[in-house]
Amino acid sequence: MRWIDEKALEDIAMGAAVLGTGGGGDPYIGKLMAQQAIREHGPVRLIEVDELADDDLVVPAAMMGAPTVMVEKLPRGDEVVKAFKALEAYLGTPVKAVMSIEAGGLNSTVPFSVAARLGLPLVDGDTMGRAFPEIQMVTPTLFGISATPMTLADDKGNSALLSTIDNRWTERFARSITIDMGGASMIALYPMRGAQVKKAVVRGTITLIERIGKSIREARQNKADPIEAVLSVTGGFRVFVGKIIDVARRTESGFAKGEATLAGIDADRGHTLKIEFQNEHLVAIRDGEVVVSVPDLITLLDAETGEPVTTEAMRYGLRVVTVGIPCTELWRSPEGLALVGPRYFGYDIEYVPVEKRFGH
Amino acid sequence: MRWIDEKALEDIAMGAAVLGTGGGGDPYIGKLMAQQAIREHGPVRLIEVDELADDDLVVPAAMMGAPTVMVEKLPRGDEVVKAFKALEAYLGTPVKAVMSIEAGGLNSTVPFSVAARLGLPLVDGDTMGRAFPEIQMVTPTLFGISATPMTLADDKGNSALLSTIDNRWTERFARSITIDMGGASMIALYPMRGAQVKKAVVRGTITLIERIGKSIREARQNKADPIEAVLSVTGGFRVFVGKIIDVARRTESGFAKGEATLAGIDADRGHTLKIEFQNEHLVAIRDGEVVVSVPDLITLLDAETGEPVTTEAMRYGLRVVTVGIPCTELWRSPEGLALVGPRYFGYDIEYVPVEKRFGH
Repeated sequence: MRWIDEKALEDIAMGAAVLGTGGGGDPYIGKLMAQQAIREHGPVRLIEVDELADDDLVVPAAMMGAPTVMVEKLPRGDEVVKAFKALEAYLGTPVKAVMSIEAGGLNSTVPFSVAARLGLPLVDGDTMGRAFPEIQMVTPTLFGISATPMTLADDKGNSALLSTIDNRWTERFARSITIDMGGASMIALYPMRGAQVKKAVVRGTITLIERIGKSIREARQNKADPIEAVLSVTGGFRVFVGKIIDVARRTESGFAKGEATLAGIDADRGHTLKIEFQNEHLVAIRDGEVVVSVPDLITLLDAETGEPVTTEAMRYGLRVVTVGIPCTELWRSPEGLALVGPRYFGYDIEYVPVEKRFGH
Repeated sequence: MRWIDEKALEDIAMGAAVLGTGGGGDPYIGKLMAQQAIREHGPVRLIEVDELADDDLVVPAAMMGAPTVMVEKLPRGDEVVKAFKALEAYLGTPVKAVMSIEAGGLNSTVPFSVAARLGLPLVDGDTMGRAFPEIQMVTPTLFGISATPMTLADDKGNSALLSTIDNRWTERFARSITIDMGGASMIALYPMRGAQVKKAVVRGTITLIERIGKSIREARQNKADPIEAVLSVTGGFRVFVGKIIDVARRTESGFAKGEATLAGIDADRGHTLKIEFQNEHLVAIRDGEVVVSVPDLITLLDAETGEPVTTEAMRYGLRVVTVGIPCTELWRSPEGLALVGPRYFGYDIEYVPVEKRFGH
């Protein structure tokens, strides 16, 4: 157990956006929201997965929707608490800890707001080890854990509670409701007992994103290369250095979908990298060939500052280093790839682990 | 209080489809379902509104969706009980009686299934005095009564519980979920206390539809005119006699929308009547002029048999008498017309009560 204060949120939000792979919302906004909650209610206790008792009830909280809309519809903080408390009331058991569903600028920090406001500890882990766009795309799905009962709440006072036969159905209903709610909703889902958390989640995610954020901050302070620092902490690889020359994005079926085109500079001069995304980056295509794909992480870092660039922050002329980071091993099983591999997203290619292509 | 048995369902289902104004589903199927439940569980007690205690909890149950889909996705009966019991569990109070949300081939008989299966009485009334396509279009809305908490259940085992800030939001979320559920869902909504039922519902609807059905049956037995019998019981008017020469229907945004064109025969020879519908008939347009509109009822009766013709049963060549029936006075207030008048449905016309145009 350790305490997370306002200051620690700086590194956490920055690092979270690295694992957010373009999605998960604006880390700056996420940071401000969580800092505000900590200022009002005090620091948050971060506990390790093994500190949970087997029957402790743990409930992840998050924001759902297209990141482009999420940053327009910032929660006041009480909507997510409302969704969280509604689920707790339905379950009829006091929740012992909050958790992150995914790593990402907003969804790593929203749970801090909930934890601070309710005086609950936050579990050091998440259910993706990164960000993915759809609700069923979590490691608990691989362990047969249900996303429901799940609650959704909006900023107007509407709420919904879902019970579904599988997590794909949860995604379907929750996406429709989120679209009706204006494109973004606050959610509480995947209620789990401690014993389930111990076997089914990715451990240490908050500590990892804090280390990533810290490495970027310290590299900049020491005039060192922040990109190298990120690669060192994450075990990632430099995929492409380029300038953004085109971005096409649209909100479709409740997702921010689109693609960005990068023209190579330095060692990559004369080459092109195309990044396609659905909230998160799905594939990186170099000169027509997929070189990194889900479930591995594709992250764009500002070439100067090392700061992660979300899809909605991509703009013409920005120089970025595209980085590929190996995903958690759970995603590389046949079941994992069926859930979040390139074929699920419509790419008829074999998944090749990023280190196979870029490792030395 | 009186008992409704299998045989009474014959008249009830037939009469319900008259007030269903084209929507509300197939009366034959609705009848079979309710009769099956009564055969298995015994007759249903029909109680008058005034037999309720002021704090008795009453819950209407219904099927939601495009009638075209509803007849394809017939409930086994346990889905609607599931939705009903889920709402009861959420409310934490035993339900004392079931009610119909609307009159219609399926939605007048579904509550009989629930009442029979759960051994509960059915209230002699409904919340429209007819059928309307959208959830907020009920008399309780005029009295500030909320549609939520509301539950939805499908045939696969999925369910949802909604809490909304107003009944238009309920319609929005429930429609999306119903579309996701395949276009039809079983619902429980507008939970009310006896005191609310007494002031906010249309009374005697079951008794009225039974009388309508009986009048058609007896007229046929006695070789009398079943159309005249319906007009006499409902206070309705003969609007047009014609042959269906064209029907266009589509399922759009979860509704069965479309229009039918009738070529006049007998006294209406040389004239045309167009009926436009959204699940239910909205307007009847004679030679380009609206002659009957919501909230008054527009019903097509088979010219030979007097049986009501639902929109999905309309077919080329069928000879029908179009009948206009005055709606309940509640719908004729400014608030009522704002909720269910022609302008809500996109017709820029003043509402003219049907008896003003056709009364003698």
